[in-house]
Amino acid sequence: MSCNFGEKVKITIFGQSHSEAIGVVIDGLPAGKKLDMDKISEFMSRRAPGRNNISTSRKEADKPEIISGVVDGVTCGAPLCAVIKNGDTRSKDYENLRTVPRPAHSDFAAFFKHNGFNDIRGGGNFSGRMTAPLCFAGAVCMQFLQDDGIEIGAHIEKIAGVSDKRFDPVNVDFASVKGKAFPVIDDSRGEEMCRKIEEAKLDADSVGGVIECAVTGLPVGLGEPMFDGVENVISQAVFAIPAVKGIEFGSGFDGAEMKGSENNDAFSCVDGKFVTDTNNHGGILGGITSGMPVIFRVAMKPTPSIGKVQKSVNLITREDEDVCVHGRHDPCVVPRAVPCVEAAAAIAIMNLR
Amino acid sequence: MSCNFGEKVKITIFGQSHSEAIGVVIDGLPAGKKLDMDKISEFMSRRAPGRNNISTSRKEADKPEIISGVVDGVTCGAPLCAVIKNGDTRSKDYENLRTVPRPAHSDFAAFFKHNGFNDIRGGGNFSGRMTAPLCFAGAVCMQFLQDDGIEIGAHIEKIAGVSDKRFDPVNVDFASVKGKAFPVIDDSRGEEMCRKIEEAKLDADSVGGVIECAVTGLPVGLGEPMFDGVENVISQAVFAIPAVKGIEFGSGFDGAEMKGSENNDAFSCVDGKFVTDTNNHGGILGGITSGMPVIFRVAMKPTPSIGKVQKSVNLITREDEDVCVHGRHDPCVVPRAVPCVEAAAAIAIMNLR
Amino acid sequence: MSCNFGEKVKITIFGQSHSEAIGVVIDGLPAGKKLDMDKISEFMSRRAPGRNNISTSRKEADKPEIISGVVDGVTCGAPLCAVIKNGDTRSKDYENLRTVPRPAHSDFAAFFKHNGFNDIRGGGNFSGRMTAPLCFAGAVCMQFLQDDGIEIGAHIEKIAGVSDKRFDPVNVDFASVKGKAFPVIDDSRGEEMCRKIEEAKLDADSVGGVIECAVTGLPVGLGEPMFDGVENVISQAVFAIPAVKGIEFGSGFDGAEMKGSENNDAFSCVDGKFVTDTNNHGGILGGITSGMPVIFRVAMKPTPSIGKVQKSVNLITREDEDVCVHGRHDPCVVPRAVPCVEAAAAIAIMNLR
Amino acid sequence: MSCNFGEKVKITIFGQSHSEAIGVVIDGLPAGKKLDMDKISEFMSRRAPGRNNISTSRKEADKPEIISGVVDGVTCGAPLCAVIKNGDTRSKDYENLRTVPRPAHSDFAAFFKHNGFNDIRGGGNFSGRMTAPLCFAGAVCMQFLQDDGIEIGAHIEKIAGVSDKRFDPVNVDFASVKGKAFPVIDDSRGEEMCRKIEEAKLDADSVGGVIECAVTGLPVGLGEPMFDGVENVISQAVFAIPAVKGIEFGSGFDGAEMKGSENNDAFSCVDGKFVTDTNNHGGILGGITSGMPVIFRVAMKPTPSIGKVQKSVNLITREDEDVCVHGRHDPCVVPRAVPCVEAAAAIAIMNLR
Repeated sequence: MSCNFGEKVKITIFGQSHSEAIGVVIDGLPAGKKLDMDKISEFMSRRAPGRNNISTSRKEADKPEIISGVVDGVTCGAPLCAVIKNGDTRSKDYENLRTVPRPAHSDFAAFFKHNGFNDIRGGGNFSGRMTAPLCFAGAVCMQFLQDDGIEIGAHIEKIAGVSDKRFDPVNVDFASVKGKAFPVIDDSRGEEMCRKIEEAKLDADSVGGVIECAVTGLPVGLGEPMFDGVENVISQAVFAIPAVKGIEFGSGFDGAEMKGSENNDAFSCVDGKFVTDTNNHGGILGGITSGMPVIFRVAMKPTPSIGKVQKSVNLITREDEDVCVHGRHDPCVVPRAVPCVEAAAAIAIMNLR
Repeated sequence: MSCNFGEKVKITIFGQSHSEAIGVVIDGLPAGKKLDMDKISEFMSRRAPGRNNISTSRKEADKPEIISGVVDGVTCGAPLCAVIKNGDTRSKDYENLRTVPRPAHSDFAAFFKHNGFNDIRGGGNFSGRMTAPLCFAGAVCMQFLQDDGIEIGAHIEKIAGVSDKRFDPVNVDFASVKGKAFPVIDDSRGEEMCRKIEEAKLDADSVGGVIECAVTGLPVGLGEPMFDGVENVISQAVFAIPAVKGIEFGSGFDGAEMKGSENNDAFSCVDGKFVTDTNNHGGILGGITSGMPVIFRVAMKPTPSIGKVQKSVNLITREDEDVCVHGRHDPCVVPRAVPCVEAAAAIAIMNLR
Repeated sequence: MSCNFGEKVKITIFGQSHSEAIGVVIDGLPAGKKLDMDKISEFMSRRAPGRNNISTSRKEADKPEIISGVVDGVTCGAPLCAVIKNGDTRSKDYENLRTVPRPAHSDFAAFFKHNGFNDIRGGGNFSGRMTAPLCFAGAVCMQFLQDDGIEIGAHIEKIAGVSDKRFDPVNVDFASVKGKAFPVIDDSRGEEMCRKIEEAKLDADSVGGVIECAVTGLPVGLGEPMFDGVENVISQAVFAIPAVKGIEFGSGFDGAEMKGSENNDAFSCVDGKFVTDTNNHGGILGGITSGMPVIFRVAMKPTPSIGKVQKSVNLITREDEDVCVHGRHDPCVVPRAVPCVEAAAAIAIMNLR
Repeated sequence: MSCNFGEKVKITIFGQSHSEAIGVVIDGLPAGKKLDMDKISEFMSRRAPGRNNISTSRKEADKPEIISGVVDGVTCGAPLCAVIKNGDTRSKDYENLRTVPRPAHSDFAAFFKHNGFNDIRGGGNFSGRMTAPLCFAGAVCMQFLQDDGIEIGAHIEKIAGVSDKRFDPVNVDFASVKGKAFPVIDDSRGEEMCRKIEEAKLDADSVGGVIECAVTGLPVGLGEPMFDGVENVISQAVFAIPAVKGIEFGSGFDGAEMKGSENNDAFSCVDGKFVTDTNNHGGILGGITSGMPVIFRVAMKPTPSIGKVQKSVNLITREDEDVCVHGRHDPCVVPRAVPCVEAAAAIAIMNLR
């Protein structure tokens, strides 16, 4: 199924970009937890569109309405369902895309998967908008994780080839990015990234990037060998975010070029706690948490919807036909995807505990 | 659970490196298919150890014995169980590792996960040996896939920083690597890789690398949006292979540095079939197959077990203690992991159909 | 998890009796099917309360609002979410039940399961009201099943010891009960049942009963041996209906008293179709459909909420305390449970195909 | 899938009646538990055939060989796989049944499900023999449950219409049946049952019956509302046993004839523990354990394989053809099914904790 994730805390996401509403059911949350709705709203606003001139002009309140699972602000043990109304939709922008698919977009595959009955408006249920309920679920899970001392934070590691610093994988400093409107460690690199995004926008083009995420405070021993390791489960959650095309843990692809003697992390005991001196393993050994920070990086392709005229084909006439996307789109989805990656990590970790 | 994969064709893997046997149950295979056991053996021999001087000297017949699900060589619709006896085990090599974990190895996490009751011999069920039943399952699934015109092939893309050519992602040429003992497209680069592996071996060290895999012949429309997309499902399967630390689809991390106008793949209609002129999307749009070859690359860390003396810690005394691994290990697992990646792709695709 | 059912067509139910709304997500429906909303409403109205003097006086429009998965009345392949607002709630009726649980009701177990944070109002997510979204899901699934010639129908087989005729299990005659406000084959027995219900109501008591359900038009070969047989899957769905305490297939408990030579159903070939002359096996052999009608009967206990003073205990003071239920309750849930049983059968069969 | 059960402790059963072996993989068992193999053997011997003149003459050692998951007799956290060799097989007895199916047997449905490729020998994977690995899994789970004070026991409640006493559902007395070769509470009724079985045997016929099972020592709060309630999960497990056609919990079908005031169980607090004075609810309220003994009864049809000549049809010629079963079969499977029901309960409860 497309919309379900997890066994312990099961996430079910529904909706399309232009359906009446989108939402999520979260089943398996412990009862008795007072949810901090302000924190949830704050988290979701990091993903919300229309906040600045480098994101889509679509405006959405993105206000989740909790319709079950919570009584007087406290979880009651029943499945929590939250619904987010879709407001500012311009469905006419999309009708021509049904038969002339946008390059690199889901239109083409969705057309054949659903025999032409797919909801083409705004990308239907393939839309980046589906990450709004993902973020809601992530924000809720995070509040449970924080009670156990588990923190999750991400930042933009790269946009259009401009790199930020990386987290120190042994001592992750979330404070260096927390609360920033454009979450990078080195703000001067962030400014350069913004310039690249604006250039792309002016050029009716788009750019991609890389997000780095860290999870701290994890106990040793989460995850299972083989198919339910930490890497497997986080990957399954993260690839739910549209535009993600790669993921690496710890030293990742760089580590593949290192020698064992370089890449191996020596063990120590510091203040009675077993640690590693370095963290090339990204906090995961044999699929299991080592107690060190879990570190992963996610590659996001450039937004497929661009204003430039592009070559495509008419699915009915089978003739070549140019396509020019008139909808409102982000020239770079990476900044808004940062909380999405955190949310994906949160629902993954929630299911590993 | 650690050992289960898939809903349509369910794979259950069991065993430890030094248990009496390892094996796999495959449930959901259609009845009436005559299995080609020679092909299965041939496939598994690509993974088997002890075939040359750059792999472990552990010798294993790796002969799968089918104990259910097949009557007179033909699948009968009942779960297929195959068992592989463990023969050449030297369990004494490992006893000292229980309390002084090998850096970058699963020992440490397994110890805490299982309160010290984990099977330390040969890495227990975290061992690379568990990929033998994975390969058996993959080889079986591949025979069903081939009936539908689906082919899977992988090659070594990089070892120790030495790069092979990549597959042409639009017209994948499996013939360029098929049947090679050391599967690279450019054999001269392969020889250089082998030299690097031998150097590492002589130096009691190890090296990592990257494997590229392609799947051709897929129909349009496999996979589901969000959590059960092709990327999600292949990742879940591939991260089951020990030492895998990263995966990317299509242009992947490189694509994250490209502009939309560069990364987007234009559509055409050629001979009545819809195709893309380039394949940066790696055959996957919105999580769904596009009908183009699925292309992905897998980063493998250098073998953690190396002969060099390494700094570790005694988990009981909490004192620093050096560890020196005496077991038999591959200085580079990448060559033997090539069929494992193909097998992981096969079980993933089998579950997407 | 509590609220999920199925792998092929996944049903996720959410809500509590007095939460803002209740609803369901249905994932995996084929795209391109025009839903007949009138038929769905008609089906749901059979379950709705407040229609006569033998059911609860709570009035609910029970009008499902589809908020995703359908475009212009046609399924689009995205998860279908329907929400039903909760209107006529009187939450004050329930507060005293939190600490003095109603005998035979879920209050007691829910209190301990959720550490006292359970939603006590109207029974929370244990309420019979949760069968409204179940009926919606069932009504939707039924429209897909009918396209394949599969019909589902149920009737009241027994109430308060008064028995209706049973379906002829070989030639099920749905017409004998279809469209009846009080679905029995023999209306005179139905009148007697109604009298028993009214007697119980006047006496501040309640009665239980048995529902018989049939599914016709099934192909041979649905279901899997052992854990996913037709009996297993239907049972898992049917026990989701509150008050169900037993289920039997075919000759069931009566068959347990028969000899093999009596209970075995002889095979024939009639008009080119393989059939059995009798149907003691209830259309299921070895967990697999035989092509004959699937027949099962469901035992429902008398409504636990009764007006009589009952002995209970205060969970805080641990002292004996009488409980007297003031809420609005059905003296017999059996008539309203008839469509619920049909709905459970529909979602089960939908997942077996 | 046919062969998988459970999420927390996953059971995967494989094999056919006449395949080389049958077996089971149990994944998710806690590490560090010393298994009592004698107890397991003793439990399995209660199911084993050939022990007396009222069961099949097929002789099977039924000795499980543990090939993974256990080191020096102690669970190590890896999936436990046990294999049981099939010895005394007479496959020739069955070949004629492929095209002329036995009435009430799985042959017919299996033939069409698997296009005639089903393993017909001994019933293939539909055979009652598949309960041997189920019993092994149940015996293993029971040892974990007993550590937490949970006990499971069943007895023959009825055979051929002859009834045993029932357990006192409030104070279950396992001692009254434990260790008996023919487990009934009232041995005189047991003798009468045996006579009925022998009569049926002499008459080339078979008889069915009812098994009652109790689970004591359960905490309050296990299970989930709706689809994963205790009734749902136990049913899913119990219907895996061939010949089971019905199940009821607590007062079950009898309760359906009672009034609420009769069927409701009053709460009390005895010695600081909340209990009910009666146990018509069978220890389950709203799908959740109440802390009272879980009580259920299982209806088993008479063995379909009987020596009498029976009317059937040839699946190829479509002509009527008599069938006479020559294999070795139990005239009554109820006695041997008693441990199977206990085992099913054990794997169900193990997954509810």
